[in-house]
Amino acid sequence: MSESYQQATITLKDFRFESGEVLPVVDLFYEAWGELNAQKDNVILVTHALTGNTHIYNNGEAGDNGWWEFLVGPGKPFDTRRHFVICINVPGSCSGSSGPATIDPQTAKPYGMRFPLVTIRDMVNTQKAVLDTLGVRKIQAICGASMGGMQAMDWAVAYPEMVGSIIPIAAPGRVYPQSIAFRKAQRKAIMLDPNWQNGDYYEGNYPVDGVETARMIGFISYRSEQEWRERFGRNTADDDMLRIESRFEIESYLEYHGKKLTERFDANSYIYLSKSMDLHDLGQGQSSYEAGVQRIQCPVLMIGFDSDLLFPCYQQKEVVDILQNVNPHVYYSEIQTIYGHDAFLIEETAIASAINTFFQDISFTQNSEEYSHVSYRGPANLAG
Amino acid sequence: MSESYQQATITLKDFRFESGEVLPVVDLFYEAWGELNAQKDNVILVTHALTGNTHIYNNGEAGDNGWWEFLVGPGKPFDTRRHFVICINVPGSCSGSSGPATIDPQTAKPYGMRFPLVTIRDMVNTQKAVLDTLGVRKIQAICGASMGGMQAMDWAVAYPEMVGSIIPIAAPGRVYPQSIAFRKAQRKAIMLDPNWQNGDYYEGNYPVDGVETARMIGFISYRSEQEWRERFGRNTADDDMLRIESRFEIESYLEYHGKKLTERFDANSYIYLSKSMDLHDLGQGQSSYEAGVQRIQCPVLMIGFDSDLLFPCYQQKEVVDILQNVNPHVYYSEIQTIYGHDAFLIEETAIASAINTFFQDISFTQNSEEYSHVSYRGPANLAG
Repeated sequence: MSESYQQATITLKDFRFESGEVLPVVDLFYEAWGELNAQKDNVILVTHALTGNTHIYNNGEAGDNGWWEFLVGPGKPFDTRRHFVICINVPGSCSGSSGPATIDPQTAKPYGMRFPLVTIRDMVNTQKAVLDTLGVRKIQAICGASMGGMQAMDWAVAYPEMVGSIIPIAAPGRVYPQSIAFRKAQRKAIMLDPNWQNGDYYEGNYPVDGVETARMIGFISYRSEQEWRERFGRNTADDDMLRIESRFEIESYLEYHGKKLTERFDANSYIYLSKSMDLHDLGQGQSSYEAGVQRIQCPVLMIGFDSDLLFPCYQQKEVVDILQNVNPHVYYSEIQTIYGHDAFLIEETAIASAINTFFQDISFTQNSEEYSHVSYRGPANLAG
Repeated sequence: MSESYQQATITLKDFRFESGEVLPVVDLFYEAWGELNAQKDNVILVTHALTGNTHIYNNGEAGDNGWWEFLVGPGKPFDTRRHFVICINVPGSCSGSSGPATIDPQTAKPYGMRFPLVTIRDMVNTQKAVLDTLGVRKIQAICGASMGGMQAMDWAVAYPEMVGSIIPIAAPGRVYPQSIAFRKAQRKAIMLDPNWQNGDYYEGNYPVDGVETARMIGFISYRSEQEWRERFGRNTADDDMLRIESRFEIESYLEYHGKKLTERFDANSYIYLSKSMDLHDLGQGQSSYEAGVQRIQCPVLMIGFDSDLLFPCYQQKEVVDILQNVNPHVYYSEIQTIYGHDAFLIEETAIASAINTFFQDISFTQNSEEYSHVSYRGPANLAG
């Protein structure tokens, strides 16, 4: 069976950001797999994380695998034979959509730090606009991890009538101080780099060392103490360790991943999306945090990882607990893993299985084209 | 009762560092309280942490309190009426002893990054040399937290005949990758600062932003998620949060503590002592890690904090477990606290009480001038 694939850019005119700033033109790049049905309601929206992009699945070419292959495709949880699976690059990013690296038509130079602040709600609003343009009436499921999970929840708060279900993974309903501290230090590291030049480095040198340092700090929050201990122990990367420059293997690993990011990600985008995450709070604009969370009326599968340092599981449970008595379809799956926050890219079987079970439980089965909202009224499954 | 106080600098000639490098002159500054007895065996050695110094206790002047007041003084666990309590600034530091900021007599300029690598063993060896100079024959107890706890353990491995007991707090027997990663990112942040100038900033500008960033990263590892959540929540430090520069309270708190350190601590010293901690491994030069740990034959009180992110308690238990069957006097006290690694400065009552109990149990009581080594053969108390 051949699968259809498309990629396109939708241009929004005079888009108003949550800060009040308006840009005359905001481009949104997306990739999509599968066919939109006649009712335009067989959509699965995948929302990506900070350094993510739209390429979740291969487009039929060899060597072109995406970052969430195990969830997308024929027979996979997001089945491209039946669903239109779409991922849209968030504004502020650098993989096709408008962001700090985009040329400001008024100055003919990149926006840099003059790009408007981007919030999770702005991401949701741009995605809404793209889906409106495509004529989409209903989203069967929104799934994302980390910053993507924040978007999934915020969608259900902002546009409850349009959202069939959400699957937030490794994401909180609001962000707490330690997580902000991790990102604050990362932003400060980028800004420390003399090449950063207050964000106007596009005609000069990319702030490699700053982004590398930021990525190192990020990795501490993405991985787990146990994984690194088992994987690296005290293995050394240099022969003579009794020198100030000597490195353990963990250090060369961090250097490698730090440098790798500098080859594919804009430094200012990193600052912008990092800040978006700090600002995430479902209580924003509501009478309370609880009131915001309780706007989530669709079925929810919340997935957490027991070794997640960045967004510890209690933060996912907090959302589940608040929804417990007001939403009959709240499922919580806590996956045991040593891979920490990054488990959303690694724990393939456990995640796919949790999603398949969720879809079955809410009658979102392979045989049903219709989405049945009220099929299961059991209590949330507080595993783990 | 008036307490005696002294401060002095001992100069070591041709000191050989573990790396093989020799410095013609190494100064060691110390402060001490109480009187050395005739047998010169009533010594309690306090070993300080990375940004610590010798000032653990006031010297009788108002407003001059030290950082470990609750442990030192008449009637306190380290009783200055009976003991000679001494703290020696480690080499590589910047509070009286030789370090990167010291003038190299050969060039008449600060050593900067040309100062020899400093290891935990080098710290122990300089302390040994100072105590030899003072004629000390026996140390009744060595107590330190974090890097200070590493020194306490290493003393018992290096000079078992001289050490009566050790009290390592929030310190591992060897350092694992996540902890190294935290410090790697800190060192890299300092080096990122254009003012750092490869360590030769003494005639220019101090790398304020680099050290501030390093301190921020450090603080994440020193405090706990829970403490910050309860203390700061999502409190804001700025009115309009919808700006890229806006700050939550946790951010202004980190900025405050980051800046504060730049006023009192040398940036290169931070790099050097950070590296010393990475290299800490009691198995160094031994047939195995276990063999190194098992050289600790004196009574041990190991104190851990259940919320310590930098050196999680399993790392203290690891040492206790290895000693379990070869050392009859191993006590483990796990203190429940929300203050994380920094609890060694905060959990006054719990720490003082654990130490008092330990001293009583090993017959190191107030009435006994003599130290009795074998008074209790029970198993280690694995609390918590």
